[in-house]
Amino acid sequence: MSDISSSNGSGRKSCWYEEEIEQNLRWCFALNSILHTGSSQYQDIALLDTKPFGKALVLDGKLQSAEMDEFIYHESLVHPALLHHQNPKNIFIMGGGEGSTAREILRHRTVERVVMCDIDEEVVDFCKSHLAANKEAFFDPRLHVVINDARAELEKRKNGFDVIVGDLADPIEGGPCYKLYTKSFYEGTLKPRLNEGGIFVTQAGPAGVFSHTEVFSCIYNTLRHVFRYVVPYSAHIPSYADTWGWVMASDSPLTLDAEKFDARIRQRIEGENRYLDGKTFASASILSKAVRKSLAKETQLYTEGTAKFIYGHGNCPNIPSA
Amino acid sequence: MSDISSSNGSGRKSCWYEEEIEQNLRWCFALNSILHTGSSQYQDIALLDTKPFGKALVLDGKLQSAEMDEFIYHESLVHPALLHHQNPKNIFIMGGGEGSTAREILRHRTVERVVMCDIDEEVVDFCKSHLAANKEAFFDPRLHVVINDARAELEKRKNGFDVIVGDLADPIEGGPCYKLYTKSFYEGTLKPRLNEGGIFVTQAGPAGVFSHTEVFSCIYNTLRHVFRYVVPYSAHIPSYADTWGWVMASDSPLTLDAEKFDARIRQRIEGENRYLDGKTFASASILSKAVRKSLAKETQLYTEGTAKFIYGHGNCPNIPSA
Amino acid sequence: MSDISSSNGSGRKSCWYEEEIEQNLRWCFALNSILHTGSSQYQDIALLDTKPFGKALVLDGKLQSAEMDEFIYHESLVHPALLHHQNPKNIFIMGGGEGSTAREILRHRTVERVVMCDIDEEVVDFCKSHLAANKEAFFDPRLHVVINDARAELEKRKNGFDVIVGDLADPIEGGPCYKLYTKSFYEGTLKPRLNEGGIFVTQAGPAGVFSHTEVFSCIYNTLRHVFRYVVPYSAHIPSYADTWGWVMASDSPLTLDAEKFDARIRQRIEGENRYLDGKTFASASILSKAVRKSLAKETQLYTEGTAKFIYGHGNCPNIPSA
Amino acid sequence: MSDISSSNGSGRKSCWYEEEIEQNLRWCFALNSILHTGSSQYQDIALLDTKPFGKALVLDGKLQSAEMDEFIYHESLVHPALLHHQNPKNIFIMGGGEGSTAREILRHRTVERVVMCDIDEEVVDFCKSHLAANKEAFFDPRLHVVINDARAELEKRKNGFDVIVGDLADPIEGGPCYKLYTKSFYEGTLKPRLNEGGIFVTQAGPAGVFSHTEVFSCIYNTLRHVFRYVVPYSAHIPSYADTWGWVMASDSPLTLDAEKFDARIRQRIEGENRYLDGKTFASASILSKAVRKSLAKETQLYTEGTAKFIYGHGNCPNIPSA
Repeated sequence: MSDISSSNGSGRKSCWYEEEIEQNLRWCFALNSILHTGSSQYQDIALLDTKPFGKALVLDGKLQSAEMDEFIYHESLVHPALLHHQNPKNIFIMGGGEGSTAREILRHRTVERVVMCDIDEEVVDFCKSHLAANKEAFFDPRLHVVINDARAELEKRKNGFDVIVGDLADPIEGGPCYKLYTKSFYEGTLKPRLNEGGIFVTQAGPAGVFSHTEVFSCIYNTLRHVFRYVVPYSAHIPSYADTWGWVMASDSPLTLDAEKFDARIRQRIEGENRYLDGKTFASASILSKAVRKSLAKETQLYTEGTAKFIYGHGNCPNIPSA
Repeated sequence: MSDISSSNGSGRKSCWYEEEIEQNLRWCFALNSILHTGSSQYQDIALLDTKPFGKALVLDGKLQSAEMDEFIYHESLVHPALLHHQNPKNIFIMGGGEGSTAREILRHRTVERVVMCDIDEEVVDFCKSHLAANKEAFFDPRLHVVINDARAELEKRKNGFDVIVGDLADPIEGGPCYKLYTKSFYEGTLKPRLNEGGIFVTQAGPAGVFSHTEVFSCIYNTLRHVFRYVVPYSAHIPSYADTWGWVMASDSPLTLDAEKFDARIRQRIEGENRYLDGKTFASASILSKAVRKSLAKETQLYTEGTAKFIYGHGNCPNIPSA
Repeated sequence: MSDISSSNGSGRKSCWYEEEIEQNLRWCFALNSILHTGSSQYQDIALLDTKPFGKALVLDGKLQSAEMDEFIYHESLVHPALLHHQNPKNIFIMGGGEGSTAREILRHRTVERVVMCDIDEEVVDFCKSHLAANKEAFFDPRLHVVINDARAELEKRKNGFDVIVGDLADPIEGGPCYKLYTKSFYEGTLKPRLNEGGIFVTQAGPAGVFSHTEVFSCIYNTLRHVFRYVVPYSAHIPSYADTWGWVMASDSPLTLDAEKFDARIRQRIEGENRYLDGKTFASASILSKAVRKSLAKETQLYTEGTAKFIYGHGNCPNIPSA
Repeated sequence: MSDISSSNGSGRKSCWYEEEIEQNLRWCFALNSILHTGSSQYQDIALLDTKPFGKALVLDGKLQSAEMDEFIYHESLVHPALLHHQNPKNIFIMGGGEGSTAREILRHRTVERVVMCDIDEEVVDFCKSHLAANKEAFFDPRLHVVINDARAELEKRKNGFDVIVGDLADPIEGGPCYKLYTKSFYEGTLKPRLNEGGIFVTQAGPAGVFSHTEVFSCIYNTLRHVFRYVVPYSAHIPSYADTWGWVMASDSPLTLDAEKFDARIRQRIEGENRYLDGKTFASASILSKAVRKSLAKETQLYTEGTAKFIYGHGNCPNIPSA
């Protein structure tokens, strides 16, 4: 296939995707092509074919996930919570319109029903038609896609869930996702929808040595005030140019040694994980001294009143942050 | 139509076409999309949809022409030579595969036959199918497209031409176009193919206050040694981020005042020029003091022995340089 | 001197100055170094050492002038007006804090007194100490630097001037320069300060085939309503990546053929011009068909009420635009 | 202090440092200033003041270390090896001219003598005079700086060392560092210089999910053939936009649990680590499933015959790679 990038024999690339990780930091991928573009009432949507990371989903100019390494994000988001649960049957996804989170959940043989609740129908339809890797998942009879605000949806539902997965954009004051990270939402809306022994896990933004103070430490601290057991963990995701964080929370103990973890993977999960196993999770859930210390010191809570800003997510709706 | 460029509401663009004008100078256009890519035995071919200049044809990572301002280049290349000629009927284009040069020539009512000789069939086919503005020209019965090396083609032809138009990449030592700019080619091959009163015109590379020394002054000086009358002229082309140059040459006087020039436009050319008229050409053919002085002092000739380098055209074949 | 730019032997440059010419168009210079930075109450000031254009003065992230080609701008701004005047003795510069405009004016033997009125003392001091090329001019006894708003200064002065030179940032609604481009300012303040036979000339923003509609055509049209004779002209300035425009205006005829123009240069100007002579001005003052047509059709006037926006000059004070 | 970066009020940055992480991947830092530049017979040297990561040392256009996060690299390189040793007194650094590696080693109370052997005197002098954080280390009487090729130096020395630290550029075929990563060098030159119970540790290039195959896995495999006990570990370094790897090797067991590790930190190290402690190392030395699997499968050895290429390090001499 041809390549538009060569330039006067020097191999210089001509077309680039450029993202401002922060105001003073740029991350640029050489492009093969711009596969699709579209827009919804909430955001611009694009699917790019990048040289370093393959197909990349971009919402409002922010990379959501890249073909080559989204497995790191999605295996890390989904499997620890489902594996720590005794017998996860009913799962609720807040956001996740991309479909990759559902795909990983549906690999679990115990799972009988998955509700994916995303507010942006265009994103769901766009991913359904353009992301080949998730096609099968979108057509799995166990998956029920609902277009709604996750809070409204959880409030109106009577039945409970074994695991609730937060695959939303980061909390920013004024952003539509913010209210889905607050103490009052967790206490008043989310926790009541968890069955006995239920587990909540959420993506929690960047968790690098410096970037973890943007939202990760505050999400962790907020959940610490709502659940008895809270486990923060992280992994470096190359296409994000950062280490990413997740927080798992429950009122039941979250203890599973590496061997048990691997045993449950063998029993419960179809196919083989590429990134995550017992040892990987053991490593991922031990944060560096620098991050541990600052998490321990974190006092801020997300409440309706307060918020923390994370660069460049200012106008994101209730969408998958990856 | 959607736009992939907005980022976190700041209007930042995400996808860019980047060209190195020189090693230390970059020129970047925000992209709407990458419309088509392909490649030939000679070069990579791409058609980009850029925000500032519309559709842009890129060969080997060098912008060839942009929808929004290619009229400046092509009106300047074609009309002065054809208007200075008494009655131009037979025209030969060296290169020009893009089709825009043929399009402008075919606007002349006097023209009976145009031979466009480009070495790269894929470029010709690519432009034929993708450049809407030139569709009509490609299907004009007066146009005869030949896939061949321009020198070989001119050598084998017996008949002469009223005007020969050079729409080739700039001369670089070792580049396949170089030999089409030499004194020996002009004297031994090209000039013999010009009919009585015939005129040769060629694109002559950048002609800015500094950039004219790359090839413009040397092309001018070479032609000055082959033809009795030689007229260099130039125009600023926004998408090139530079002033561009052309040289018109003949053994018959090249004198046409602005009024006569305009009168012939009215008599001979279908439709209306956007850029060029008598006054515009009068201005274009008066070079600034800085450029005039250095042209007057230029002593180098293009011969089989010598050559001058122009940045970033190192691997260009016999192709339209715009 | 060393060069920080080489990278893994590929000659790639590491440090770049980047400017958004427009929102969708970037212009980037490889950097040798950042020589000085400072800031005033009005703007950030920087002097960069760039590879393609030498030392460059940047105000609020916009290139003001570059060592290698500022002579094109300043010779074009100053000499046509002074040469068209019978005997220019007293000159007033609005803005011009960089000192290059004064430098060119002071080359005229007829000139007895130059008032340079810039509102930003820091810019004046910065340029005085850092721009070697203008050192001599700053210490010329004929130069009188005043720190004030040009309008206030012209209003309070009783004496008249033979030539008034506008070297200000472009007019943008809300920008502090805007009021120095309005019909009422020209009529009520500026014109009364011109002596009999006096001439006003102003930089007039980009004058490219597309960019001339930003402010050039409107400045031209406004002056056409205030002065009997108005001459717009332009030149391509490489470091601006565009053709630039100036407008000369007077109630006395502005007619000087190329020969007379050159004769007066010889009589009046110390040293030799690099860019401008009679032929160059003749060419510069003949605009292309595209620009001429749109100037002829321009109906908008700058009045206290109206304004036109030019990209990226939103917060410029009363400063040299080059 | 002023900031050259603001542009037309939009906060856009004007000056950038740009690095090609790989051919298709760029990483760009906004610049405050270019503090110093120089060059040696081996490479260009620059000290930049960047907005996201503070002062950054750049050699031949590759970031070596950044003020804000170099502690992650240097604590990880130095402390695990010294803490695993019973009583490290004599230390040899291959490369390390920047001084940060020596600084961390000299924090160990047990250390009596450190030989830093770097081939590039200019780099050593440059860092000595410009890197404030390492000033004290450079003047520590225990530090002996030798300008020489590390191999030649180790060969001529009779005495042994308790710990040898490799702080060299990555191995590239043809690169001058390559021979300092080969099986024959480790066996024939380095290992004989290690005292009983001695430990060797080396930086080992990128260790990300994809990038670890560049050199990390091969360095690991080569050491596995030379030493009985080999421990690979890694950490994400924000300014490198990647996870970085190190390999520790010895013929004595390398077993130290987190508590013992922390106890020795308290006993032996002056001041407090910011990044590394027992838990951090426990996590760092458990690689993800993806990396573990590919390390286990690695069969290539660095020998005089073979080599692996890592992007953009083609012309690096015997220098600190961070």
